[in-house]
Amino acid sequence: MNLRAGKSRVDDGLAAKLAKAGVRLSATATHDLVRGIAAAAPTRDDATWLALISPRRHAALDKSLLALKKHYDRAPDGIGARNASASRLAALRAELARRKLDGFLVPLADEYQGEYIARRAQRLAWLTGFTGSAGLAIVLAERAAIFVDGRYTLQAETQVDGTLYERHHITDSPPQRWLETALKTGQRLGYDPWLHTEDGRARLSAACESVGATLVATETSPIDAVWRDQPPPPLGPIVPHGIEFAGRSADDKRAEVIETIRTAKADACVLSAPDSIAWLLNIRGHDVANTPLPHSFALVDSDDRMTLFVDRRKLTPGLAEHLGNRVTVAAPDALGPALDQLGRTRRIVLYDASGSPAWLHDRLTRAGAKVVRGADPCLRPRARKNLIELAGTRAAHERDGAALVRFLAWLESALKAGPVDELGAVARLLSERGKSPRFMGPSFDTIAGAGPNGAIVHYRSTEASNRRLEPGSLFLLDSGGQYLDGTTDVTRTIAIGRPTPEQRDRFTRVLQGHIALGSARFPTGTTGSQLDALARQFLWQAGLDYDHGTGHGVGSYLAVHEGPHRISKVGNTVALEPGMIVSNEPGYYKTGAFGIRIENLVVVAGIEAPHGAERAMFGFETLTLVPIDRRLVEPRLMSAPELDWLDAYHAAVRERLIPHLKGTPKALAFLRRATRLIAR
Amino acid sequence: MNLRAGKSRVDDGLAAKLAKAGVRLSATATHDLVRGIAAAAPTRDDATWLALISPRRHAALDKSLLALKKHYDRAPDGIGARNASASRLAALRAELARRKLDGFLVPLADEYQGEYIARRAQRLAWLTGFTGSAGLAIVLAERAAIFVDGRYTLQAETQVDGTLYERHHITDSPPQRWLETALKTGQRLGYDPWLHTEDGRARLSAACESVGATLVATETSPIDAVWRDQPPPPLGPIVPHGIEFAGRSADDKRAEVIETIRTAKADACVLSAPDSIAWLLNIRGHDVANTPLPHSFALVDSDDRMTLFVDRRKLTPGLAEHLGNRVTVAAPDALGPALDQLGRTRRIVLYDASGSPAWLHDRLTRAGAKVVRGADPCLRPRARKNLIELAGTRAAHERDGAALVRFLAWLESALKAGPVDELGAVARLLSERGKSPRFMGPSFDTIAGAGPNGAIVHYRSTEASNRRLEPGSLFLLDSGGQYLDGTTDVTRTIAIGRPTPEQRDRFTRVLQGHIALGSARFPTGTTGSQLDALARQFLWQAGLDYDHGTGHGVGSYLAVHEGPHRISKVGNTVALEPGMIVSNEPGYYKTGAFGIRIENLVVVAGIEAPHGAERAMFGFETLTLVPIDRRLVEPRLMSAPELDWLDAYHAAVRERLIPHLKGTPKALAFLRRATRLIAR
Repeated sequence: MNLRAGKSRVDDGLAAKLAKAGVRLSATATHDLVRGIAAAAPTRDDATWLALISPRRHAALDKSLLALKKHYDRAPDGIGARNASASRLAALRAELARRKLDGFLVPLADEYQGEYIARRAQRLAWLTGFTGSAGLAIVLAERAAIFVDGRYTLQAETQVDGTLYERHHITDSPPQRWLETALKTGQRLGYDPWLHTEDGRARLSAACESVGATLVATETSPIDAVWRDQPPPPLGPIVPHGIEFAGRSADDKRAEVIETIRTAKADACVLSAPDSIAWLLNIRGHDVANTPLPHSFALVDSDDRMTLFVDRRKLTPGLAEHLGNRVTVAAPDALGPALDQLGRTRRIVLYDASGSPAWLHDRLTRAGAKVVRGADPCLRPRARKNLIELAGTRAAHERDGAALVRFLAWLESALKAGPVDELGAVARLLSERGKSPRFMGPSFDTIAGAGPNGAIVHYRSTEASNRRLEPGSLFLLDSGGQYLDGTTDVTRTIAIGRPTPEQRDRFTRVLQGHIALGSARFPTGTTGSQLDALARQFLWQAGLDYDHGTGHGVGSYLAVHEGPHRISKVGNTVALEPGMIVSNEPGYYKTGAFGIRIENLVVVAGIEAPHGAERAMFGFETLTLVPIDRRLVEPRLMSAPELDWLDAYHAAVRERLIPHLKGTPKALAFLRRATRLIAR
Repeated sequence: MNLRAGKSRVDDGLAAKLAKAGVRLSATATHDLVRGIAAAAPTRDDATWLALISPRRHAALDKSLLALKKHYDRAPDGIGARNASASRLAALRAELARRKLDGFLVPLADEYQGEYIARRAQRLAWLTGFTGSAGLAIVLAERAAIFVDGRYTLQAETQVDGTLYERHHITDSPPQRWLETALKTGQRLGYDPWLHTEDGRARLSAACESVGATLVATETSPIDAVWRDQPPPPLGPIVPHGIEFAGRSADDKRAEVIETIRTAKADACVLSAPDSIAWLLNIRGHDVANTPLPHSFALVDSDDRMTLFVDRRKLTPGLAEHLGNRVTVAAPDALGPALDQLGRTRRIVLYDASGSPAWLHDRLTRAGAKVVRGADPCLRPRARKNLIELAGTRAAHERDGAALVRFLAWLESALKAGPVDELGAVARLLSERGKSPRFMGPSFDTIAGAGPNGAIVHYRSTEASNRRLEPGSLFLLDSGGQYLDGTTDVTRTIAIGRPTPEQRDRFTRVLQGHIALGSARFPTGTTGSQLDALARQFLWQAGLDYDHGTGHGVGSYLAVHEGPHRISKVGNTVALEPGMIVSNEPGYYKTGAFGIRIENLVVVAGIEAPHGAERAMFGFETLTLVPIDRRLVEPRLMSAPELDWLDAYHAAVRERLIPHLKGTPKALAFLRRATRLIAR
């Protein structure tokens, strides 16, 4: 095969093999498809993506396809190329001049406003070299600037050329203020309406207006016009999410969503969140890392019809039947005309202004539709897990806990045998999780911070940053798995050698907060904002705090960060309701020294009413089953009920994990030691 | 004097006495003035209001004036008249028909959106007979309805004629929904734009629009047109609030307010909250009960000029000098033309849409002014008490605590001597507070609930509801005083005889919540919503809760309920800042049995950083100094730190109050007993 020449001169043998296997795709079309698959997240096995080309396996064809995929996996996309920033910036400026634009906004976002985005959408990284998970660049003819938050200040200084871009802290020196000084009256600042929400655009628009400039939507992205090696949109296979995991039929879910649409006095709803669509249709995808979501848009009609706008090539065999005859599949570019049709018939369309691209709003209103702003109607029912999903997540947490215990047992003996570093630990943990056939991959990039790296809240180990786990240090390990029956997310802080009194004091305060929140009871209507202080109070008493939220919602084999509820200082009006999974993860970070976080997932549940109770209260059932490092607990700081909680938690961990560790006596012995009663 | 004939045939002797005293007022004008004074709140002494007529005292004139005031104090105003509802409703309907209106909204509000309103503004009570503190009536040609909250459901059934008014629960069956069914397309629903905020009007307007009806502002109130005995606007004397209490000059305050106006990019600000105006100008008034505020409006210009719109007759001698030459006094009816002038010059005016009458907005925008919506710029600086105000409130709380201890000592012995009832206790408490020369009156209507009356959260004793304090019951006493140097608000729950185990359990849980909140530490930016759960957690654990907020802001010889901060389940974005006074008042109420509430006022303060602290934390300094009933405390439920808190609090109460009780040995002995250490 002459692969190096790319699809223009495709391997003649491929066409023959396709024909022999009875596949109707041309060799060129197959190249396109495999290139899209390579631009998506890896599937757990090759059979899943091979089925997009042929439902049956043919050894010769498969071999060619695997080689083709390997080729495209290695195809350069230009991201991370050294010293390309200046030429790319110049190319973009030339493109802007051609379009008569005085500038352009380059956010780190895709058209789904997702947390994980495909390589194709890494426009900020391609342009500036900055690879952090949040940021915004503004390019004007003479000036350019990049805005990142405190986590990424140092990284931006290393990665972004300061002679090309002014580098700013996004809250201390916000883009709006920069625009007010950099833009001139009458100038036209371009933006891609697919990459900004209506709410986000309003803030930038106000800044432009205040200096007499205009924000101008582009029809097509000027970056895409100059990014030669840009990957295509991902073509991750879409698979059914069986009722044995979902617990509820798509018809039943749609009925509830339609009820919400009708209550909002709307005729239809446009969905732009792929995880909402995945939940609603009981499907999963492979378009981005860590979250099994299928990039797509959807229209739900109140007369119980639905259109899924998605590249048909992503549908695995049988998926159309799985979707059923109420769901029409249409090409992504049919979305615009479908919205126009809603406008022509003067329909009222429910739309989430805070989570959807402004493009949707503009197209709808231009077409004459009336837009009703409201939360995505899938958010609340998706957050309230059903009994099957809860049973699934309990089972997934047992497997995940067993994997963690095997890892911890390995770590203990490995440290006796020789040095262990962050990347080695990450690899070992992944392999322990991978022993479960239901494990589909990590639910986010593992945070494995040894010593001072543990104090970097969003740390990610690289070859450059990799540290050994040294005696007298703490090792912060935050990781999670995507299992077919549930998503996990757990943080444990592990003493390497003998911890200091300061480390034990801080760990114990974090643990007390974790226990106070985990054992809280609260009435209907209570939000996570109301409970957040329970987790911080012991740190606050000592003049300490942590600069992140205390808890986020978690999906069911879906996004590990899922709304609409959360536990944080920031106000939130969403009440915690039974079935909502949320993390409980207070922490403490001493810059340059160590980091501590204790994270369990918990689920909101009704509780048995104590004698004399007058009102129903909710509480949390703990899902995560991993021992908490007893060497870091200072019992003298804790009350008897707090120690009782810890002992009871360890007893439950032991009881639930023992059956999973029967074949691994060393891990079993570790579990027994790690879950002993705390000496008082 | 022929007083019965009213001012049309005034006493000839008065004119002569006025002339003899050198007072230039006519007898008719004097009648008007005294009638306005009678329509205001009483002053602590007669000299204060007599000075509005003559700065110097003349025995003969004063005697006439006192008689005149007594006459007007007794003048009928029609509120509370039995069996007048039908004729008044008919008169209003006839007036509406004359004005071509299909209906009219009757809120319980005045043009200042105040908590306490003058008799003149009691239009809802006059029309319907309902005397609760919150409600709304809607009168249509054929139907009428009154909407009250859960506190007042029973009261409305007793007071309001069900054959005239449908009676609805304001949240279960809101006025908007009622309007949607009762109003017809094309109908015109009148409202008084002085009595609704822009925000409130928007909700009602949406309901009207949804059925094709229109909300129509009236030029003058149709109720006032048919209310024959309506009192005039109150003419409570306005007095200076000395710098020795205010701690900060009006010039200095105005400079800060102007800074806020400029930051909002506005040229001026219109103030409609009399307590903001009182704070800003260092003045106090007597227009309504319980809060020493002067009904007025004000315009603050960013060029450091200010206009106070107020009836000049209310200014006590020397007040104009106190206001200084930057402040112009204008008549209330000059406000409209002043706003028109702002419009003509295209000025930008800051205006609080949630707290100001919609009339202001409409007049400004009609005149061509640009309105900028934002919080009243006085709110935040008013809430952050200065050191002089804090010293004043500490001193006031000592006097108030001493009065409470004398009362409690009296109660203990009175109960041994014979029966005591709620009204008797209220009177005694008032007389104890009145012994301080700085005491100006109660800061709200005392809540004195014996037994089951204690479970009624907003209870107010009347002759009909009055109960004896019976053995085995609890007595809930929530009261406060207005002192020249500070405002107090304290609730204690007192065991009458031997409390039951249930009462002790509930009291202790409330106390634990009070202690948890009172001893909280928290970082900058923390809101009351974040801390609220600390006060409820012990009740929540037992399946119990209370249906009111945990804390409200308190003024400095001003409103006992003062924004913008509060501690409650309801979301609030205002951070607690040093100098803010707030109540800490968790409770528990068992309907038909007993009520418990423990309320201290506390002030946000910086705290000494503990060893190893990394961040500055705030905490609360306790202001209230009254023993907590030890007989209701169950020490076995409490932790050692909680018991330490209680002992330390009682030690502070004892130490601070002893000097104030030197002359009352019985009260001193009571104090010593009531503040002993808790047996563990």
